[in-house]
Amino acid sequence: MTHKTRYTLAQLAELLDAKLIGDGQCEITGLAALQNAEPGQLSFLSNPSYVSQLKNSKASAILIDEKYLDSCPCNKLVTRIPYVSFAKATALFDNSPLPPTGVHESASVDASAVLGKNVSISANAVIAANVSLGDDVVIGAGCYVGENVSLGKACKLHSNVTLYHGVVLGKNVKIHSGSVVGADGFGFAFDGSKSVKIHQLGGVKIGDDVEIGAGSTIDRGALEDTEIGNGVKIDNQVQIGHNCKIGEHTIICGCAGIAGSVTIGKYCIMGGGSGVVGHIAIADKVQVSAMSLVSQSIPEPGMYSTGTIQAKTSQWKRNAIRFQQLDSIAKRLKEIESSTDKQ
Amino acid sequence: MTHKTRYTLAQLAELLDAKLIGDGQCEITGLAALQNAEPGQLSFLSNPSYVSQLKNSKASAILIDEKYLDSCPCNKLVTRIPYVSFAKATALFDNSPLPPTGVHESASVDASAVLGKNVSISANAVIAANVSLGDDVVIGAGCYVGENVSLGKACKLHSNVTLYHGVVLGKNVKIHSGSVVGADGFGFAFDGSKSVKIHQLGGVKIGDDVEIGAGSTIDRGALEDTEIGNGVKIDNQVQIGHNCKIGEHTIICGCAGIAGSVTIGKYCIMGGGSGVVGHIAIADKVQVSAMSLVSQSIPEPGMYSTGTIQAKTSQWKRNAIRFQQLDSIAKRLKEIESSTDKQ
Amino acid sequence: MTHKTRYTLAQLAELLDAKLIGDGQCEITGLAALQNAEPGQLSFLSNPSYVSQLKNSKASAILIDEKYLDSCPCNKLVTRIPYVSFAKATALFDNSPLPPTGVHESASVDASAVLGKNVSISANAVIAANVSLGDDVVIGAGCYVGENVSLGKACKLHSNVTLYHGVVLGKNVKIHSGSVVGADGFGFAFDGSKSVKIHQLGGVKIGDDVEIGAGSTIDRGALEDTEIGNGVKIDNQVQIGHNCKIGEHTIICGCAGIAGSVTIGKYCIMGGGSGVVGHIAIADKVQVSAMSLVSQSIPEPGMYSTGTIQAKTSQWKRNAIRFQQLDSIAKRLKEIESSTDKQ
Repeated sequence: MTHKTRYTLAQLAELLDAKLIGDGQCEITGLAALQNAEPGQLSFLSNPSYVSQLKNSKASAILIDEKYLDSCPCNKLVTRIPYVSFAKATALFDNSPLPPTGVHESASVDASAVLGKNVSISANAVIAANVSLGDDVVIGAGCYVGENVSLGKACKLHSNVTLYHGVVLGKNVKIHSGSVVGADGFGFAFDGSKSVKIHQLGGVKIGDDVEIGAGSTIDRGALEDTEIGNGVKIDNQVQIGHNCKIGEHTIICGCAGIAGSVTIGKYCIMGGGSGVVGHIAIADKVQVSAMSLVSQSIPEPGMYSTGTIQAKTSQWKRNAIRFQQLDSIAKRLKEIESSTDKQ
Repeated sequence: MTHKTRYTLAQLAELLDAKLIGDGQCEITGLAALQNAEPGQLSFLSNPSYVSQLKNSKASAILIDEKYLDSCPCNKLVTRIPYVSFAKATALFDNSPLPPTGVHESASVDASAVLGKNVSISANAVIAANVSLGDDVVIGAGCYVGENVSLGKACKLHSNVTLYHGVVLGKNVKIHSGSVVGADGFGFAFDGSKSVKIHQLGGVKIGDDVEIGAGSTIDRGALEDTEIGNGVKIDNQVQIGHNCKIGEHTIICGCAGIAGSVTIGKYCIMGGGSGVVGHIAIADKVQVSAMSLVSQSIPEPGMYSTGTIQAKTSQWKRNAIRFQQLDSIAKRLKEIESSTDKQ
Repeated sequence: MTHKTRYTLAQLAELLDAKLIGDGQCEITGLAALQNAEPGQLSFLSNPSYVSQLKNSKASAILIDEKYLDSCPCNKLVTRIPYVSFAKATALFDNSPLPPTGVHESASVDASAVLGKNVSISANAVIAANVSLGDDVVIGAGCYVGENVSLGKACKLHSNVTLYHGVVLGKNVKIHSGSVVGADGFGFAFDGSKSVKIHQLGGVKIGDDVEIGAGSTIDRGALEDTEIGNGVKIDNQVQIGHNCKIGEHTIICGCAGIAGSVTIGKYCIMGGGSGVVGHIAIADKVQVSAMSLVSQSIPEPGMYSTGTIQAKTSQWKRNAIRFQQLDSIAKRLKEIESSTDKQ
């Protein structure tokens, strides 16, 4: 579909399932944050700490929860979760170029591939044998789709994505450029003098509505499949090792690294740059803070962290040197406590 | 070669150089871990803590060390290192699609390139001037192989790999998709107002039997070459800076980052997400744990770590704040000890 | 331009704006560090701690500050900042292959694209609609340049780079292979059961003289643009989130991850593997050490760190376990101090 970039408030109220309070004929031509909005733009109030910005915002209308109506002087679109309504509005105003229709003449599509309706395959993409592409699938320029790969309806590969043989994507999966799904897991057996490769015989199964950012890698399983659940969102430069199982709707932020054979529950949030060592399990609804390392299984929900807090390096160094003495410090403290007790 | 996926145990005993105890006519159609194995599958016992799983495994045969024979009720293939035999078995059962033969019509191969026997070059790959490809080399779709690059016998580049000019690969080197070898090292001289580029005049030399995962980057040297020794295994999203020398058979796990001019010895294991600062040396047989930072040279073998252990964030925060007072804590403890001594 | 790899010292003195002391007819055929240099090579003294290497260096000439003249027995090229002069010399000796001229027949260039003079577009590159390429632009093999992208004079994309629609590059921007600029920022609104995508309507603006390494990713903004200032240098596998503003001449080392909506000042140095959480601001001239996490805004220049110092794992573990007791240790120490005060 094409996106128009001009709507009346009455149209937006309908499209966003919102209650309009104000001028339905007011024209909206874009979106902006409260403090940056210009006349003609729609904004939103999500974080209550920004309520005070409402009265000075130049926005022509604001997506808002009904409890803040009185603080808002301009047109209002009242919804239950304004941030979600804003997300839906971004889709309405997205005027990204539409994918070209059909198969580009420079694409290389194996005769055995099965293409659904309305499939777009861009220049220099390569579709190997026995690939199945659902309706409305978009394959960007320079992508490689390996043998026996299956993409569900409305999947989109941006340019230069690589899918190894046998990878299975559900419906509406989006993968950004440079990402690689189905490369060999990292498995070797050491024979005393060298590493002997363990061929990776499993695959990768990705559920519906998954989005994978740019430059991320998800390895194929050793014997079983690596599995990514429905609704999982993966940011850029994330690494997911072989045999991992990622639960539905979990969010993995940029640069996180998940080692092999890790199970992560549903609705987790793995912070940016966080890491998980191999062969452990993380429960549902766990959050791991940025650059924290999970080295033991986490059996219950909650937020977990490792590391220290930033400090000027000169000051940090004094403390970091003392960390090396921490066991001694603890023992010496204990000793003093014991001798004090005896007194 | 094509891989059949059905062998008798007698055939497997011969192919894996194992001693068969049991039914040589038993047919094996796949591999699985002890607890997942189905009848018809071959499994293995590597970790002694799984001995108790032997009696309940449904596997038709098990690769096993002779000392555990008595605990194993089914057919046995006895070998010295069952895990290595299992690795060799994965090669036998690997039925990944074979690379297409010959040069695809959409590939762009410079007339000056020298191709060995049985070379496979896939769709839209680009081979620049004066490239030399050994016998049995496989170049995946969309790869770029720069000027004067040399690949030894049986090297395999998966799709969308980039090799800059002058890179030299030994025999049997495998590189996964999205990886880049020979990009410029990160070198600049600061002139007081801006960074002046130091052109990177060195190359990259990679030994035999090296495997490099997906999305990894190995930079060319500034003046000398960056060197990766024989048998080195590099996982996904690993960064290796200019002028590094990586010793033979060292293993570098996913997301590790090695800064420039680092020397790493032989048979090291760099954990996932670990880092090494520039211009230091690490001895042979050093292991660095996940997400640890090596900021000083390591002159002797052993395992090294940095960081803290995961905790609930609320609890972690209390301790992390105290870390900022650690030098003070140590001094105050010392003072108490001194005053106690005086009493 | 082509690079000759043979100069007389008199020529080099002129090209490098240096004062020659010695034999102007001496021929220089390459560059090397002091301790590696062979006769015929030019070296440099940048770090004063290497002064003692001057007398044993086999270099035929040395780039040097005038204050060390007396310690240098061979030919000298005297300059104000020898390391910068060395950087300029590397450009003179760079004999990397020149890009092919013109548009390769296998490239796919949309009819609406506007190409400057002397543009080079390599095999299988794809140039989408309404792209503008300045004079002397080089597009490597397999690159994808999206709709409405603009590249200033003398930009160079190495092979397999992806630029999403609407990305704007200034003059003389270099981007290495595998990097992706303009992919969607990571933004979702949680509706109670799933993540609703926030379409990323902003773009990416990159200034002049920026260099971006291999495998790096810079996301497009959510509503406004992500902005990279003039002269910024970004290493390999760096992730920069949506809406970031990176100040001029800042250096971001390999594997660093900058979350969304971060502002970083001018002339900062972000160490390898460092991280910055979202929505914070870092002042000019801040340095962050390797693998440190910035989780709070930094309002003043200086060097900042987090983490602990490497130790043998056995010893580290004892201290790391005590870290979990640190708040208790601090409280108990305080208690002892209080009771001692009372005595």
